[in-house]
Amino acid sequence: MVRVVILGQGYVASIFASGLEKIKAGKLEPYGVPLADELPIKIKDIEIVGSYDVDASKVGKDLYEVVKAYDPEAPESLRGITVRKGIHLRSLKNLPIEAVGLEDEMSLKDAIEHLVNEWKELRAEVFINVCTTEAFVPFESREELEKAIEEDNRDRLTATQVYAYAIAQYAKEVGGAAFVNAIPTLIANDPVFVELAKDSNMVIFGDDGATGATPFTADVLSHLAQRNRYVLDIAQFNIGGNNDFLALTDKERNKSKEFTKSSIVKDLLGYDAPHYIKPTGFLEPLGDKKFIAMHIEYVSFNGAHDELVITGRINDSPALAGLLVDLARLGKIALDKKAYGTVYEVNAFYMKNPGPKEKGNIPRIIAHEKMRMWAGLEPKWL
Amino acid sequence: MVRVVILGQGYVASIFASGLEKIKAGKLEPYGVPLADELPIKIKDIEIVGSYDVDASKVGKDLYEVVKAYDPEAPESLRGITVRKGIHLRSLKNLPIEAVGLEDEMSLKDAIEHLVNEWKELRAEVFINVCTTEAFVPFESREELEKAIEEDNRDRLTATQVYAYAIAQYAKEVGGAAFVNAIPTLIANDPVFVELAKDSNMVIFGDDGATGATPFTADVLSHLAQRNRYVLDIAQFNIGGNNDFLALTDKERNKSKEFTKSSIVKDLLGYDAPHYIKPTGFLEPLGDKKFIAMHIEYVSFNGAHDELVITGRINDSPALAGLLVDLARLGKIALDKKAYGTVYEVNAFYMKNPGPKEKGNIPRIIAHEKMRMWAGLEPKWL
Amino acid sequence: MVRVVILGQGYVASIFASGLEKIKAGKLEPYGVPLADELPIKIKDIEIVGSYDVDASKVGKDLYEVVKAYDPEAPESLRGITVRKGIHLRSLKNLPIEAVGLEDEMSLKDAIEHLVNEWKELRAEVFINVCTTEAFVPFESREELEKAIEEDNRDRLTATQVYAYAIAQYAKEVGGAAFVNAIPTLIANDPVFVELAKDSNMVIFGDDGATGATPFTADVLSHLAQRNRYVLDIAQFNIGGNNDFLALTDKERNKSKEFTKSSIVKDLLGYDAPHYIKPTGFLEPLGDKKFIAMHIEYVSFNGAHDELVITGRINDSPALAGLLVDLARLGKIALDKKAYGTVYEVNAFYMKNPGPKEKGNIPRIIAHEKMRMWAGLEPKWL
Amino acid sequence: MVRVVILGQGYVASIFASGLEKIKAGKLEPYGVPLADELPIKIKDIEIVGSYDVDASKVGKDLYEVVKAYDPEAPESLRGITVRKGIHLRSLKNLPIEAVGLEDEMSLKDAIEHLVNEWKELRAEVFINVCTTEAFVPFESREELEKAIEEDNRDRLTATQVYAYAIAQYAKEVGGAAFVNAIPTLIANDPVFVELAKDSNMVIFGDDGATGATPFTADVLSHLAQRNRYVLDIAQFNIGGNNDFLALTDKERNKSKEFTKSSIVKDLLGYDAPHYIKPTGFLEPLGDKKFIAMHIEYVSFNGAHDELVITGRINDSPALAGLLVDLARLGKIALDKKAYGTVYEVNAFYMKNPGPKEKGNIPRIIAHEKMRMWAGLEPKWL
Repeated sequence: MVRVVILGQGYVASIFASGLEKIKAGKLEPYGVPLADELPIKIKDIEIVGSYDVDASKVGKDLYEVVKAYDPEAPESLRGITVRKGIHLRSLKNLPIEAVGLEDEMSLKDAIEHLVNEWKELRAEVFINVCTTEAFVPFESREELEKAIEEDNRDRLTATQVYAYAIAQYAKEVGGAAFVNAIPTLIANDPVFVELAKDSNMVIFGDDGATGATPFTADVLSHLAQRNRYVLDIAQFNIGGNNDFLALTDKERNKSKEFTKSSIVKDLLGYDAPHYIKPTGFLEPLGDKKFIAMHIEYVSFNGAHDELVITGRINDSPALAGLLVDLARLGKIALDKKAYGTVYEVNAFYMKNPGPKEKGNIPRIIAHEKMRMWAGLEPKWL
Repeated sequence: MVRVVILGQGYVASIFASGLEKIKAGKLEPYGVPLADELPIKIKDIEIVGSYDVDASKVGKDLYEVVKAYDPEAPESLRGITVRKGIHLRSLKNLPIEAVGLEDEMSLKDAIEHLVNEWKELRAEVFINVCTTEAFVPFESREELEKAIEEDNRDRLTATQVYAYAIAQYAKEVGGAAFVNAIPTLIANDPVFVELAKDSNMVIFGDDGATGATPFTADVLSHLAQRNRYVLDIAQFNIGGNNDFLALTDKERNKSKEFTKSSIVKDLLGYDAPHYIKPTGFLEPLGDKKFIAMHIEYVSFNGAHDELVITGRINDSPALAGLLVDLARLGKIALDKKAYGTVYEVNAFYMKNPGPKEKGNIPRIIAHEKMRMWAGLEPKWL
Repeated sequence: MVRVVILGQGYVASIFASGLEKIKAGKLEPYGVPLADELPIKIKDIEIVGSYDVDASKVGKDLYEVVKAYDPEAPESLRGITVRKGIHLRSLKNLPIEAVGLEDEMSLKDAIEHLVNEWKELRAEVFINVCTTEAFVPFESREELEKAIEEDNRDRLTATQVYAYAIAQYAKEVGGAAFVNAIPTLIANDPVFVELAKDSNMVIFGDDGATGATPFTADVLSHLAQRNRYVLDIAQFNIGGNNDFLALTDKERNKSKEFTKSSIVKDLLGYDAPHYIKPTGFLEPLGDKKFIAMHIEYVSFNGAHDELVITGRINDSPALAGLLVDLARLGKIALDKKAYGTVYEVNAFYMKNPGPKEKGNIPRIIAHEKMRMWAGLEPKWL
Repeated sequence: MVRVVILGQGYVASIFASGLEKIKAGKLEPYGVPLADELPIKIKDIEIVGSYDVDASKVGKDLYEVVKAYDPEAPESLRGITVRKGIHLRSLKNLPIEAVGLEDEMSLKDAIEHLVNEWKELRAEVFINVCTTEAFVPFESREELEKAIEEDNRDRLTATQVYAYAIAQYAKEVGGAAFVNAIPTLIANDPVFVELAKDSNMVIFGDDGATGATPFTADVLSHLAQRNRYVLDIAQFNIGGNNDFLALTDKERNKSKEFTKSSIVKDLLGYDAPHYIKPTGFLEPLGDKKFIAMHIEYVSFNGAHDELVITGRINDSPALAGLLVDLARLGKIALDKKAYGTVYEVNAFYMKNPGPKEKGNIPRIIAHEKMRMWAGLEPKWL
């Protein structure tokens, strides 16, 4: 059994909840879940025990009602969980959503205590963070982080940072908890949080779930690197109509995204080929099924110039939601292994920006094998 | 030093010769050569000592003149080698080329003896077969093969099969030789030839050099398989204007190509997703820079349907020629290791249809690491 | 009122019937119908009065049941028409369908008489031919056509040719009828049939409904021609999973398709740019939504080389079905005008291979305006 | 003879000059010039008599030297013209270029007088404006424009506006001159300038030369509109590596571009389908050959959803340069016709944002025919 708490009940979390219940009921194949039936912890062992959001129209609602807005075929088995009020700290700024948060009524310190108490009651084990992409600044020292909380410095902190801090508190008190950070805010890549996790029986997976065009780009670049083709330039566009794309029209949020994605080029090619890789725009009718376009130009043998163009329509939320089904279970496995801090073997496959900070990207196919071995599975091809 | 003999001085062999000499002269980066400077045998150690063809307009010409028709910037250092007369056996049938072959003047048995004698004189070590794609039938027994040669059965044999047989004779007599079969004719996948090689101090690499859209498709399929996405269908087109595409307008030749390429789907996905993968047409103005188009549809988490479209312009001949720069050196290394028969570790990365017959395709990125280890190099990511 | 008889109750005819009834019931916008509400004859004036097929599993069934297999949302208003037995003459050869036809029980001459009598009873006005693509040979003289019918020469004739002949008989007897030939068999381009039509109060529209990639290619070529860009080459692939694509895997049928489509290049560019334009393959899971890919290379000012790649997923049957909603009404208008023979103004916009034979393709946007004027509408932009 | 003065000797103007001279010398086909040999004024009649720029590294240089930096095969016949100092007014702001302008040494009023005197000496007839894209504000009244010049208000005016004003002065004095505005600044769409032109014997063509993805998008939209397909959304990206793309990374300049391009959607479809159409980014290695990507989704008959994706590599500068070869000649023809003010027939085909203001976009293929008729040519298809 894995007891999961969701932080941010938006598109991804709703598809996660809906698909999970359908698979558990035997109504859906576990497509899009990399380890499907292979792990000792089965998909049917995952139980969602709590859900938090800061959208006024969701807080207090039944989970089934919220999920149904995203997936008309949401199963009734989602009934019975009430979406609770979380922390926002500007995370919905400039979005057409009315935000409510615990911090509207109390200090951050009190909000943290409030959350820890709720989680004890829920006996939460794994926390999945799928908040809206935030503009953030990493922390430079434990002191700075603790001071910001102590002084209720709401301009310095983001929701994700406060959640991570609260989970560390909780993990320390109850003896262990895992935090899956599926958004770009640096947590597994912030040494301050990794140290805090080690001291608090906490496992962090992160940062930024590896979905969409980027892991695919990674494999394309690995393909070229292994043939020693020299990449001249890379352009990658993507445009979508979900809230995540709307949020990224905000320049500062977009910046955090850009930072993450660019590191793959140098990591995989060994040189920093000129590239333009960033979310490009918002176009409402595309909905959750984004349009991606990529152009790569490279030099082959004898000076020949080749070109590849990749386009596609990709459902954004299901891609990440499927990974979360693994990450919830791997979080529990890591707790069983007492692998406190962060776990590069997991991050390298599942995250765009795999922590810890000093580690980079490796080809995903290699990462996949290493992750399997970490999880106690046979490698598939090695 | 690796002493190389080319069989089939067409586009690929000419780009190979031209690029090789430019790299040796320090005028070109070794882009497109996967192992570039990493092998103990360096690129400058490769020496082309002989070249065979059956195009009446090439036989007897200086190598430089022949190569220049394909690469106007061919270096003068190619001068001094005369293209010799080889074996054709219908390999130019239906192509607008006048064919001449040793078999026009003598029996196949005598032709083989003639070739073996020439190779002794050239002190050949590695033979690179880049003949035109042939329609062929694999052999079922050593006896059948030997009988066909004995009885001068020109309808049963192809040029590649006769060359492979002749090289086995030669390897047996001189104590070792390697045969790189870069075309679809099954040699490394024909147990008769692999057995013959083991008995004759011969190394076979094959079959069908892994270039063009197929290895890329392989990596795309691996990418999807590792995320457990369920592939609904795959369509892959390619159209080009070089002689290889012209030859493939011949239905029987096309069949050999089709056979090779389709095996990757089942090998990599684990199920035989419906697919249409074959060379599609000939369009002269495209020249050696073919146009490829691929469409893949798959199911992601929660039943979502995604689509990928990949198009590109890819120089056909340089892609294969770059691999040959490695294969020539790996052939010599295999001889030093006495790895007679065929070498799956090499074939799995460099060949579309990696022999021996009982082995299938694995993800190329994994194959790349295994090949490095076989060659005594550090793996790059493992 | 327009009384319509369908010949070939397959995918296109079923979508036509289903969409038509939904529009008439006010449940669907007339998207995909070029002239929508603009014609004096309204969409609600179209009435399907008869339907013919030769698939044993359809003949004798209610139209609603047949249509429902193609469109699960087919409206109940289709009930009440029974699919009748038509003529097959090899039109289902090599397809996995059991064929039944009037000619199984009687001579072609008797079958024609039988049909004419049924049509009199139905008071048919416009016949829409959407049979499976056939391999055919045009007729060279009226005598040859009449002799083939007289002598019951089933190898010389196709279903479409027999239908066209029968409709001419019918039109002569009742004073007028229109034949919309939406498949590649040359009827509007066969002078024998055009002459026959003129003598028989018959209107022919044809040949081969202008849907799919071809009219779009036509507009792309017009775009380039009007800027005097010099087209170097054109490749166009398409692959689908409906019966039409399955039928085209038959080499001879494919040839009729290829013939039609190629003429646009020379007609629109003024020179015959090298091209490869033909249906490429069958891939069942694509269903009716085919995948198209097109590559065009051209020379711009100062010798610059540009490239365009167009890919898409296009629903095959609705595209043609939408045109039929206009063609049925234009057929009636042509009858009112006594425009016997064939009408280039209509064909030039709606047909891939617009008859009569001596006329070629013109840019579709121009054709659209001319067609409007012929139909008594204001041009839209002129 | 047409005596041409270039304003802005950048990429486009240099390709224009180079290609023009090659065609005049019979060394190049007039590909990319829509009317090629059809006009009564021939290409060889065009003479470049002056060139202006504000890049310190170009001013005072021989035209041949400047052009050669863009086209290594520039013909020697370009020698003999010295690039003169023009007006900048922030047009190079934020670009890595040192700007020099007449206004550095004198008032705008004096600069205008200086230019008019130079032009008299050059006997200029047609002025081609290909300055860098500017951020601008249109004028609301003649008074406001005249006051801005009188008061030397450098913040209110852009280079293009000052040039247009100066040319009006010149045209009034010498009896006629034409101004081809190939950049987005509204001139043909600013009623103040059109009125000024009518009063001054001046012809204006504009605004923003119709090249790149936009006119192609226009034809695609016309294609869909004429079949009554309902467009759900349109995304169009383009990324390039020339100075124009670098300039557009500046947010304000980009806005002027965006304004222009969006109008086509409503003009051609009749409704404002959601769209995202704007230059997307700068990627230096792409150079002048930009990468474009477009995605269009629409509803066809019976509610079917289709998708088109268009990608391409297009040389930016030659596309516009080829149009300028026509526009220079049409400018002279308009002067001969005394068509003072602006000429919609010309603008509708050659311009993205065809003036006058009250007129919109029409399908380019129709516009092409109307333009031919205006120029005294036979229509091609009507």
